[in-house]
Amino acid sequence: MTDPNAVPLLLTPGPLTTSETTKRAMLRDWGSRDGRFVEMNVRIRRRLVDLVNGGDRFVAVPIQGSGTFAVEAMLGTMLPPDGKILLAINGAYGHRMARIVEMLGRAAVEYETAEDTPIDAAEVGRRLDADPAITHVAIVHCETTSGVLNPVEAVAVEVARRGRRLLIDAMAAFGALPLDVSEVACDAVAASSNKCLEGVPGLGFMLARREAIEACEGNAHALSLDLYDQWRFMERAGQWRFTPPTHVIAAFDQALTEHAAEGGVAGRGARYRENCRILVDGMRAMGFETLLPDAIQAPIIVTFHMPSDPAFQFQSFYDRLRDRGFVIYPGKLTVADSFRIGCIGQLHAADMHNALAAIAATLAEMGVTHCSPVPVARRATA
Amino acid sequence: MTDPNAVPLLLTPGPLTTSETTKRAMLRDWGSRDGRFVEMNVRIRRRLVDLVNGGDRFVAVPIQGSGTFAVEAMLGTMLPPDGKILLAINGAYGHRMARIVEMLGRAAVEYETAEDTPIDAAEVGRRLDADPAITHVAIVHCETTSGVLNPVEAVAVEVARRGRRLLIDAMAAFGALPLDVSEVACDAVAASSNKCLEGVPGLGFMLARREAIEACEGNAHALSLDLYDQWRFMERAGQWRFTPPTHVIAAFDQALTEHAAEGGVAGRGARYRENCRILVDGMRAMGFETLLPDAIQAPIIVTFHMPSDPAFQFQSFYDRLRDRGFVIYPGKLTVADSFRIGCIGQLHAADMHNALAAIAATLAEMGVTHCSPVPVARRATA
Repeated sequence: MTDPNAVPLLLTPGPLTTSETTKRAMLRDWGSRDGRFVEMNVRIRRRLVDLVNGGDRFVAVPIQGSGTFAVEAMLGTMLPPDGKILLAINGAYGHRMARIVEMLGRAAVEYETAEDTPIDAAEVGRRLDADPAITHVAIVHCETTSGVLNPVEAVAVEVARRGRRLLIDAMAAFGALPLDVSEVACDAVAASSNKCLEGVPGLGFMLARREAIEACEGNAHALSLDLYDQWRFMERAGQWRFTPPTHVIAAFDQALTEHAAEGGVAGRGARYRENCRILVDGMRAMGFETLLPDAIQAPIIVTFHMPSDPAFQFQSFYDRLRDRGFVIYPGKLTVADSFRIGCIGQLHAADMHNALAAIAATLAEMGVTHCSPVPVARRATA
Repeated sequence: MTDPNAVPLLLTPGPLTTSETTKRAMLRDWGSRDGRFVEMNVRIRRRLVDLVNGGDRFVAVPIQGSGTFAVEAMLGTMLPPDGKILLAINGAYGHRMARIVEMLGRAAVEYETAEDTPIDAAEVGRRLDADPAITHVAIVHCETTSGVLNPVEAVAVEVARRGRRLLIDAMAAFGALPLDVSEVACDAVAASSNKCLEGVPGLGFMLARREAIEACEGNAHALSLDLYDQWRFMERAGQWRFTPPTHVIAAFDQALTEHAAEGGVAGRGARYRENCRILVDGMRAMGFETLLPDAIQAPIIVTFHMPSDPAFQFQSFYDRLRDRGFVIYPGKLTVADSFRIGCIGQLHAADMHNALAAIAATLAEMGVTHCSPVPVARRATA
């Protein structure tokens, strides 16, 4: 890809590559009070609830902004001022929830595991037993810091057994990994348009248990992030409280149609698992090592250890891959030097094979022959 | 326009009609760390500062979401916890600022005039003299509730003379009405992508005096709305803190190029003034009356009194006009029955003439002959 105007594929945690048809849905302007635009919003909200099998028990509340806006709005709206939250943390997004709760000024305790270690449901149970004041638990479904999959199902059982409430940041997994709220007891789930649902960025949403959100009037810390108010207004008026990102919403409607056409969560998840398998197998064949064992690796984004070969320099590797048409992602780990490659977005098996071929060619060009990670002994003496 | 798929022109306060080229800028996916995307953000921020003649004294801080997100973020970031704000109110957006400040839990006093009456700068001065504890004043440049233009220049003089600080919600006017921060002393201005700059909705921004924002660390009430943090991160990393609405940003970049090509604020403002003149003249010729006298009417959106003719029914008028390809807007006044027609967005003189012809045809179809407003006496006995 020597043409500087050519568009690379995004093998990242987002923004992602989206379909041409999804982008083309943005080629018209919508009045926010237009009857067909209102219908579009009703349809989107219904589809989102259906994706978690929420029936009439759950409601969808969209919000302008990025995924973090949706997570902050979920925490601010669903956690009452006199609540206390246990934050299960094993990466940057868990820490971000902790920062949000700190700004909210709400009581919180943290249970943290290493970035390569899933949250332990039994330990969550023990922490809840030890502190009856805890009213809520928050957890990230897939932590893209490492790519680890957290056992939200098992955690939900421990939380529900003790009569506490669960809030899930499902951002990176939503639409590709199953999450059935009739089996996973929770008060709310936050996610966004731009991950596995393959819309464009600019829209988040919360799926909330109706009985839970009904009790949340006045909780929120910010007008823009008040999802109780947003929900009530939308139910009453059929419209958004504040100017909606109409083009982003139209793209999301199209993206959801394409998600359904692919077979919904099962179909989307199957494609991503295949992408992930091709990627991991191919990288291992070149000598790269994954941070995580396969059992706890979500098919969303994979963390690889940096190769030990002195000819490997990440920025050069990144730039050369980009020039070949593939954007990867830097590492975010504190525990090890690493980089990440995503499996999500409008990527298919052939794209993953092409990415692997580009990686092999780039390594040859750089003179990198040894792709296994730096031995701990050598790093300690470096 | 009998084709249900035909796209009507939006004669509203937003979302607006945008150019085809602006929409087409959304037809590619951008990685948020891509060097050219980073450059695009630098360029947009520079252009926004230049639009207010901010030189090196002002910085631009964009934020995901609607205009209200930007206004809330400006108030939360720029108003310290021990500050006290005088809110100059003459419509829904002034009241919205009051609601935000209430949620912030900051000390506030209100100075309110009727919706058809501009804020009186001398009265702002008197209120400041009477209460030395007031640190900040907030005002809406153009209140789209009525379409009234507030005298921000005169208010700025009164505020600066007393050593207080001014925050401006310039949303509806930004890019079409002059606002030169070297002449209008203020700490910050909030606006959005989707008004007179003719981008698509989903992005707001604050222009802040550098020395003022430097002192605002830790003020914000919400992580997502912390524009100090957003600014520092962007300056340091060249990137957004949280996933940016990449497609909306690319459209905004294109929209700003088109704004400059039209002659910037002067050129854009001239087109809107011409749109407004055609609209008001044409409507008056049919017998409609504007709420505001011309001297205080901003060329953004015009409020018309409801006609007294019993054959006039607003919903029917609205629907028929929409079917003819023109979307207008309901009234938001508390003082009078009214409706609104906007002059902004990708609308030209011919569009306004066509809108007037459609209105005339619609009135004829409905059998409306008398378009002057309901006499007060009749309403009182109704």
